[in-house]
Amino acid sequence: MENGTTKKPPTEAVNRWHFGPNDLLAAAGGRTIRGIIHRITSSVDERGPRPLVPLGLGDPSVFPSFRISTSAEDAIVESLRSAQHNHYPPTVGLLSARRAIAEHLSENLPYELSPDDVFITAGCNQAIELVAVSLARPGANILLPRPGYPMYETHCVYNNLEIRHFDLVPERGWQIDLDQVEQLSDENTVAMVVINPSNPCGSVLSFEHMQKIAETASKLGIMLIADEVYSHSTFGGTPFVPMGVFGLIVPILTLGSLSKGWIVPGWRLGWVVMTDPKAILKETKVIDSITNFLEISADPATFIQAAVPQIIERTKNGYFERIVNLLRATAEICYDKIKEISCITCPSKPEASMFVMVKLELSLLDGIHDDVDFCLKLAKEESVVLCPGSALEMKNWLRITFAVEPSSLELGLERLKSFCQRHEKK
Amino acid sequence: MENGTTKKPPTEAVNRWHFGPNDLLAAAGGRTIRGIIHRITSSVDERGPRPLVPLGLGDPSVFPSFRISTSAEDAIVESLRSAQHNHYPPTVGLLSARRAIAEHLSENLPYELSPDDVFITAGCNQAIELVAVSLARPGANILLPRPGYPMYETHCVYNNLEIRHFDLVPERGWQIDLDQVEQLSDENTVAMVVINPSNPCGSVLSFEHMQKIAETASKLGIMLIADEVYSHSTFGGTPFVPMGVFGLIVPILTLGSLSKGWIVPGWRLGWVVMTDPKAILKETKVIDSITNFLEISADPATFIQAAVPQIIERTKNGYFERIVNLLRATAEICYDKIKEISCITCPSKPEASMFVMVKLELSLLDGIHDDVDFCLKLAKEESVVLCPGSALEMKNWLRITFAVEPSSLELGLERLKSFCQRHEKK
Ligand SMILES: Cc1ncc(COP(=O)(O)O)c(C=O)c1O
Ligand SMILES: Cc1ncc(COP(=O)(O)O)c(C=O)c1O
Repeated sequence: MENGTTKKPPTEAVNRWHFGPNDLLAAAGGRTIRGIIHRITSSVDERGPRPLVPLGLGDPSVFPSFRISTSAEDAIVESLRSAQHNHYPPTVGLLSARRAIAEHLSENLPYELSPDDVFITAGCNQAIELVAVSLARPGANILLPRPGYPMYETHCVYNNLEIRHFDLVPERGWQIDLDQVEQLSDENTVAMVVINPSNPCGSVLSFEHMQKIAETASKLGIMLIADEVYSHSTFGGTPFVPMGVFGLIVPILTLGSLSKGWIVPGWRLGWVVMTDPKAILKETKVIDSITNFLEISADPATFIQAAVPQIIERTKNGYFERIVNLLRATAEICYDKIKEISCITCPSKPEASMFVMVKLELSLLDGIHDDVDFCLKLAKEESVVLCPGSALEMKNWLRITFAVEPSSLELGLERLKSFCQRHEKK
Repeated sequence: MENGTTKKPPTEAVNRWHFGPNDLLAAAGGRTIRGIIHRITSSVDERGPRPLVPLGLGDPSVFPSFRISTSAEDAIVESLRSAQHNHYPPTVGLLSARRAIAEHLSENLPYELSPDDVFITAGCNQAIELVAVSLARPGANILLPRPGYPMYETHCVYNNLEIRHFDLVPERGWQIDLDQVEQLSDENTVAMVVINPSNPCGSVLSFEHMQKIAETASKLGIMLIADEVYSHSTFGGTPFVPMGVFGLIVPILTLGSLSKGWIVPGWRLGWVVMTDPKAILKETKVIDSITNFLEISADPATFIQAAVPQIIERTKNGYFERIVNLLRATAEICYDKIKEISCITCPSKPEASMFVMVKLELSLLDGIHDDVDFCLKLAKEESVVLCPGSALEMKNWLRITFAVEPSSLELGLERLKSFCQRHEKK
């Protein structure tokens, strides 16, 4: 063959059939973290003597120390055994679940949410899909954080919503560059996404900075999308403030789920909440789009929805304290170990979420081309999986998950250190 | 105002914000059965003395006679209590669930399915979405049955997949008009949907007719989408044959779920299976599109997926027999009662699913404009909810659900009868 490839020509059988690929779907589906981590994990030498240490994803549910609260389990069992919740769920979610989430979130807001403000989704990922689908229209653009959570990029690409990235500034504790936000936005900008506490930075925004964000968005006429999936995972000095506190300044859609706080990402239960006391979103047609999306999209299981009030009510503060203490301890282990590795620097100590972003000093390394190359070789040589920064729009950075069993974390970081030492320039 | 409407002009607050409606979403979301039934149900006089009789939807899970098998419940509880399945699910579904479904479906096929042939979805509705998304490309069209299940229309509209309807012929036991299929299809036709056993007709296709369908599709170069969500709900003379039996003639995607057989629509657990022994779908890129879709779309809960092997294994034949006997009895009640109503005719006795299609003889009625008007007035006057045929592309027909508690069914049909008598032309 001309260029030396041995690509098989399509067989007669294939030629006969009138169906082909969907390119947009390929473009969107090819950039999820799940997919990238899968690729990196494939480099691990399975016959090697060392067990895999997964520091790539944010899912500690498999580790014994992060075992979920049994009261949450009990709530599901009771809901199921009642045999009252095997029916199709209503479009926007079960009323009892909507009410419980409204009450739960109202505790930290200066106004009361109503169940009508709450829409149940299949995890926060579907809430992100809902936002992208509902806001998409010809010519529209959206402002996304860099680094961020790639599911936003995925659904914006798939829905032809133009992406404009604003930077989180490492030197300023990952604050948002608000001047840049003003420069990027125009009359076709529909919204700005704020992920707080931050995946991937492990940072928490201060009250003052959040107020400035809200004022900027209001001035620009764009709504805020507040991804607060890590609201229960704050363990540093800066307290978490829900963006909804600034709902009188700017209309906000707040996104959340049970996944991270209750450590049950497999339950696929999330929400979108209008934290919008002036009811601006109700007056616009965005709310119709949300309902129309939910009318035609996948629902979370009814009996899981029905358990939400009990899950929220019965999960004791002791449980959250235990998890937060554990995260604080693992973040500490991670931060201390990184200080021992010269080719990796951490701009600020993580104080929330399950991740920290660190910078790779490629100039100190021999034969490593970039962050992806680093992660592939690390996986192959040390059976440790990290997430390359390029997956999050930050080339030559790395995202490290510290939400794993402490013993695994120490093992993984030790191997990371010896990998770096081995590849350091002499 | 000019035409007498009092539409409020958008307030200043709304004008300031740069976001608006999504028209395509509105077009797609406005046509689901859930939405139409909701509209009809709103006509019921809530202060009236009579309890609502819901003969509109196919969800008997709320009725005591249709109570689910406790072994299925047990399987879920064990899966949850193991605390091993709280993690994010894999893109294409949990291997154990895929294997169990492959084995279950292979029992009635002349070849063995592998777990790789199975993709887990959030109910069959998401399987329908998956099909529409994966097959959509500029200019493509798809053949859908009339009457049918509107979720197909919804997702085709939303994905710009042109819809061409072929008829199910009431005089021929709702067989497909295959001459029409040949006339409708062209080189841009990607697939043809066959719902068997049929919602809304309550009919089952014969082996011979199915073979002809497969041969026609093969000749036209289009794949088959076989919606077999009612495969466990056959109670008449014609035995159910899975379309996959003809997989050597034509590539088939078989769609199914736990919803109808196990009477757990709220569990949202379905599948798409390549019943395609020649592996044509693997050679084309359709399979990549399926994986890409699943990569970015909502997943069913992991612990429900993990319970699937036990749910399938432990649900005893006695359970299915009980449900099938119940459906046979309620179908009989329904058929007999309809014969007593002169303005409604039933072309053939239902022998499967949960529904029957009946024709409305408008000429015999006074002051009823069409099927929707009939359903709205029936709901208002008698608190009985039916699904108007226009929702299923069959104007002036009605779909009646017989899968309800027998006492409710008799009550509802008695009220339907007196409604018809009251509105009959003198
Ligand atoms: C910032 C952010 N948003 C949303 C999600 C998705 O959460 P869920 O499990 O509820 O879908 C994640 C998961 O990692 C996340 O990090
Ligand atoms: C023909 C047909 N396909 C698919 C579905 C959807 O089933 P599920 O509950 O698994 O989403 C239904 C539900 O009524 C149906 O009638």
